[in-house]
Parts: sequence; C-alpha cells; structure tokens
Amino acid sequence: ITHLQDNFIQATKGNYRHFMLKEIFEQPITIGQTLATFLDEFGNPSKGFGKVEFSKYKRIYIVACGTAFYAGAVAKYWFEQVAGIPVEIDIASEFRYRKPVLEEEGLFIAISQSGETADTLAALRHAKGKGVETLALVNVTTSTMAREADIYLPINAGPEIGVASTKAFTSQLTALAAFALNMSEQKKFLDKEHLAKLVKALTEVPDIVGETLQLDGEIDKMCLGLSHAKSLFYLGRDMNYPIALEAALKLKEISYIHAEGYAAGELKHGPIALIEPGTPVIVLAGQDPLLEKTVSNLQEVASRGAKVFLVADKKGAEIVGDIAEQIITLPDCDPFTAPIITTIVIQLIAYHTAVHLGTDVDQPRNLAKSVTVE
Amino acid sequence: ITHLQDNFIQATKGNYRHFMLKEIFEQPITIGQTLATFLDEFGNPSKGFGKVEFSKYKRIYIVACGTAFYAGAVAKYWFEQVAGIPVEIDIASEFRYRKPVLEEEGLFIAISQSGETADTLAALRHAKGKGVETLALVNVTTSTMAREADIYLPINAGPEIGVASTKAFTSQLTALAAFALNMSEQKKFLDKEHLAKLVKALTEVPDIVGETLQLDGEIDKMCLGLSHAKSLFYLGRDMNYPIALEAALKLKEISYIHAEGYAAGELKHGPIALIEPGTPVIVLAGQDPLLEKTVSNLQEVASRGAKVFLVADKKGAEIVGDIAEQIITLPDCDPFTAPIITTIVIQLIAYHTAVHLGTDVDQPRNLAKSVTVE
Repeated sequence: ITHLQDNFIQATKGNYRHFMLKEIFEQPITIGQTLATFLDEFGNPSKGFGKVEFSKYKRIYIVACGTAFYAGAVAKYWFEQVAGIPVEIDIASEFRYRKPVLEEEGLFIAISQSGETADTLAALRHAKGKGVETLALVNVTTSTMAREADIYLPINAGPEIGVASTKAFTSQLTALAAFALNMSEQKKFLDKEHLAKLVKALTEVPDIVGETLQLDGEIDKMCLGLSHAKSLFYLGRDMNYPIALEAALKLKEISYIHAEGYAAGELKHGPIALIEPGTPVIVLAGQDPLLEKTVSNLQEVASRGAKVFLVADKKGAEIVGDIAEQIITLPDCDPFTAPIITTIVIQLIAYHTAVHLGTDVDQPRNLAKSVTVE
Repeated sequence: ITHLQDNFIQATKGNYRHFMLKEIFEQPITIGQTLATFLDEFGNPSKGFGKVEFSKYKRIYIVACGTAFYAGAVAKYWFEQVAGIPVEIDIASEFRYRKPVLEEEGLFIAISQSGETADTLAALRHAKGKGVETLALVNVTTSTMAREADIYLPINAGPEIGVASTKAFTSQLTALAAFALNMSEQKKFLDKEHLAKLVKALTEVPDIVGETLQLDGEIDKMCLGLSHAKSLFYLGRDMNYPIALEAALKLKEISYIHAEGYAAGELKHGPIALIEPGTPVIVLAGQDPLLEKTVSNLQEVASRGAKVFLVADKKGAEIVGDIAEQIITLPDCDPFTAPIITTIVIQLIAYHTAVHLGTDVDQPRNLAKSVTVE
C-alpha cells in the first residue's frame, strides 16, 4: 500500500516544484468542485445538504484543531451575519473538558480534513453523547467522522499531500459559506436580492482565485524581504482576523519563522512592545470597512521602524498609501468572499518565504499530515 | 499635577527596584482588598453586588482588551462550571463590528483596569444601545465605564503604576470568581457544601499567594536560562490556557521575547514546527487533571530538543518528572483558584527575565498604561 501511495504522489506532482504549490494553484478547480457539491444547476445553495431543516437549530457549536479551527472562526461571522444564528467555537482539545453548556436545539459541527483528527473526533463523540445533533465537514468521506456524525458534508477538495493545508482550507471555507447561505435561505433571514447577490459572489470565487494566483511573482518578490525576519506579525479585523491567525500558522509550519496573528485593534494592548526596526507587519485588509481605524495603528508601528506590508483591495491601497513598504492589491470581490481570496495570498507568502529559506516545504519538520493522537 | 504624580510615584516605590515587583508582592494585600469588597462578615460572596438578581440572566457576554481579556477568558470557565451560565467572550475591538447576535436576557460585562479603554468603552455603549444590561468591572471607580454601565463592580486593587498589569489582573480574577460564586448561590446551581468549599478556597487565596511569592529566588534562577530565547512557548489546558496567553503577553510586554501561549493540545497542529534545540516550553499545569495527556506532547517537544519547564502542583511534578529541565512546584490549592496562584509565577517569570535582559520594566517601549485611542 505504501508503495502504491508513493507512485500516486510521484504521478500527481506534475510540473510543480512542490505539492504545496501545486495544491495552491489547483484551488480554482478544487473550490469549483466544492461549489458543485452544494450549488444546484441554478446556482442555489440547496444541494448536498440532504433533507435537513437547518432552520430548526438555535445555536451552532463549531469544534476543530489548527487550520480547520480558523475555517470555523471565519464561518462564525458568516452564520451570524447571513443566517442570524449565534455560533460558539472551540479548540477541540479544550472543548470536551471545559464542561460546555450545550443547548439541545444546537448543531455541533466538527471540521477536519482527514476526518480522523483525534481531538476533534473525541469532541464529536462527546457532543453526540450529550444529545446534540452532529455534522462533520470532512475531505475524506470514508473517515470515522463521516461515519459517526448524524450528517456529513464532503468538501471534495481531492487528496491533499502537502502537510500544510491549503486547498482543503479554502474548500472548507467554501462549503461553510454555502452552508451559511443555505441556512439563511431556509430561515428567510435575508431578503431575496441580498441572498442572490451573496450566492453570485460565491460562484465567482474560482475565477477570482485564478486572478489572485497571478500575483504570484509579486508576492515572491515581497517574500525576499521576509525571510530574514526573527518575528513577524499578521494583523486583520473582522473576518480577516482568523485569516491572520491562519496566515501566521502557515508561515510557522513551513518557514519556521515565529509569526503571530492579531486582531488589528489588539496590538497596542501589549504585543506592540515586540516591534523593532525591521519587524515585518503584514496587514490583511481586503474589503475592510474599518481600515481607517487600522491606519492609526499602522502609523504607530511604522514610526517604530516596522516594515508594513499591505494586502488590500484598491480602495484600501489608497487609504494606507505611503505607510506600506509594499502593497499586494487584490482583485475586486464581495466582502462576503474576501477571506477566501485573501487566503490565496497568505498561502503564497508562506510558500515563497519557505522556499527562500530552503526548508522542506512538503514535509516540514516535526509535523504529520493528520494528527490521530490526542 | 504631573509634579504631584511624580512625588506620589517616588513615595510609593518603597524598597522595591521596580513598581512592577512592588505590585507583584502587594498581591496578598490587594487580593484581600478585593475579597473584602465582595465577601460579607461570614465570608459569603454576597456583598458589593447591590440588589441585582443575577439569576435572571441567561447568558453572559464578556468584552475586554489585552490582559483584561484573559481575565474574562478564565471567568468563562468559572461562570459555566459553578453557575451553569453560558459565556461568550470577545476582544473589544472586534465585538462591535461583527454584528453579534445578543440576547436581551444577557448580561454584558466590560473589564478594564482604567475604565477608560477606548475599544471596551465603545463596546459597552454598543451593548447598551442594543438594550442589554451592562456591568463594568473596573479598578478606577471614577472612570467613564463605572459611570456609564448599569452596574459597576470595583476591584479595589489600588493604583497600578507598572505599565504591565499584575495586581489589577489578579484582582479582576478574584472579583470574577466571587461574582461567579454569587451567581451560583443565587441560582442554587451547586449544592451548599460544594459552594462552601469553593468560597473557602477563595478566602485562602491571599495566604497561598504569599507562599507562592516565596518561590521568587527559584524563579529568578530559572529565568537566567530564558533570557537568551528567541522564541518561547507557554502551554496550558483548561483554565491554564488563558493564563498561558497572559503569561506570553506579560513576557512580550517587558522582555520583548516573542513568547506565545497555546492550548497544550494545539501545539501538534502546526506550531510545533518552531521547536528547535533550546526553545523553552513552559507548561502551566497547576491542578491539571489532564496532565497525563500533556505528557505525550511534552515528550514530543523534548525529543526535538526543547527545554521544558514545568509549573505544577506536587502531583504534576511527579507525573512529568524527568522530562522537565526545572520544575516550579506550586503550594497546594483548590483547582477553582489555581489560575490566580499560577499567575503569580508567570508574573515573576516575566519580571526576572526582563531584569536579566536589562529592559525598562516599568516603562516598556512602545506601551502606554491605558489605551484611550481605538
């Protein structure tokens, strides 16, 4: 079996230098596959959810580890904003032990690429034991979580070989966005036009991801300046905050730079002490209506010598202007789907920084692809 | 006025080298003051809460920034475990903008030492505008938050001069613990004996903090080995998880070491890639019933050359044993109050590491005592 798998790996690497890069560039296709799983022939998010009446749930509990946890953290914003349903999110290894107060009318969602992550599986079993309905969002459909959950949604991202998750993450996001829209429709929470606009935005994601991938060369150039960093900060507000956390994790995983993500407003409450001349601060501000508030925080860090990099839409690029050392300008998209688009950039930043540093991108030290021990 | 304040500062520094050290050592007294605010002459947590029937609230929303946020994160465990009331917690700068779904039967708690933190104040006003009852937990009783909230609870920690918060944090924790017990009593959530045991544990905190301070010399010695670290990780499960986050923040603020806190179970989901020979990993495991699970994580990092330091009770010290480079053994205490006791150790770790590095402990670079801009 190992032998077959090796062949498979060889066979699918294609012309790319690393699996991770291949999987990053596959995303217009894999996100399209995820969409095809949940959007019907009219483009409505009504397929693949079975006959479940999601409108009956009063509260959602999302539990996951690592990268999947950050997908859940973005989904919290989506479910609350487009379906008006409150969401609580927990790290799987913490969930079970804090004696969480669960409502019976709640829906428990476990997110895991492999469907085998030990901590997440244990949390799913705990929730089931408490009488809460469970849903597993997985890539591997033959997995234990897919079998044990009351409902399972497949993200259909195809096999992911790179240890640092890329396409599984954007497919998790895409599936969760479609799910939130499905729930919104069932609850009639948004007016028809607004809902149709968001659905359309979601169908456009594969194309916009394709456009975003063309920033590859520009991002590569930017990463030359990052590879010498001792510490690095990612900042974001609202849905860009969990993406900042994922961005930092990605960079940690494959470049071994100590990157950390912060809510943009939190930096001044302590961590700003770490800023010294040359410290890179990357601001994720795609479709950020609050960017003006972030600008004063950026001026503070820039005046202390930080190298500020901006990932933003055209309007954001204009607002921040001169403060930034370099600006990566994102293609236009709806604020609803902006976290998926921004993710492509932070994946490329992690990848190119690691390549400049010469690390083993597909097999980073100390890490395993799926963590089946607690 | 500035002149008077200078005199005041001179006058109160006493024999201590820094205000921060003085304020760390004051904690048996300041925690006692906080307890006296909320415990009546029989030691019951029934004083200082006015005539509010806290049992009417169905959900608590806690909002704060920086160190105060971590006090709220510990309180989430307390309120859920001893009063059975679900708690949602948000970073103040994020709360307002994510269009949170708030229940009218909820209680909004703002935590701020100064009572002036701009983001937290704006969040409090937002919640008030949504018709939710608001409570401010503050040290400065003449502050805007104390005036504007429907209810305010003073922590009575006395003026805090060191920019890195120490005694205000432990008084916030103490007040929140008393508050959770008050709510527990009103809701009759625990049986009388259990409640009495927890109240008694809380009254014993000042003495146990006094004992913990005697570990000062031992901790100082340990910090010699930390001051050369490029990166450092704090790990904790359950209530030790937010304390790990606060521990990392404290170290960042005054030593400028890039420390980061993680839930012990999360390290293997990515950040473990940063572990290299010599990386310090400090495990907070006081009263940790799950320490056995953490041991396998520690073996993993130790086998990659990490220097493991353990802060634990006697039982924990036995379980971890040889893996640890050094063990700081905490005095015995109830699991309920363990986060307060552990805090004393992490404050001393931050302080002594910073002193070894020669930084300006009381006026760390880039930081202000209270942040009154957004």
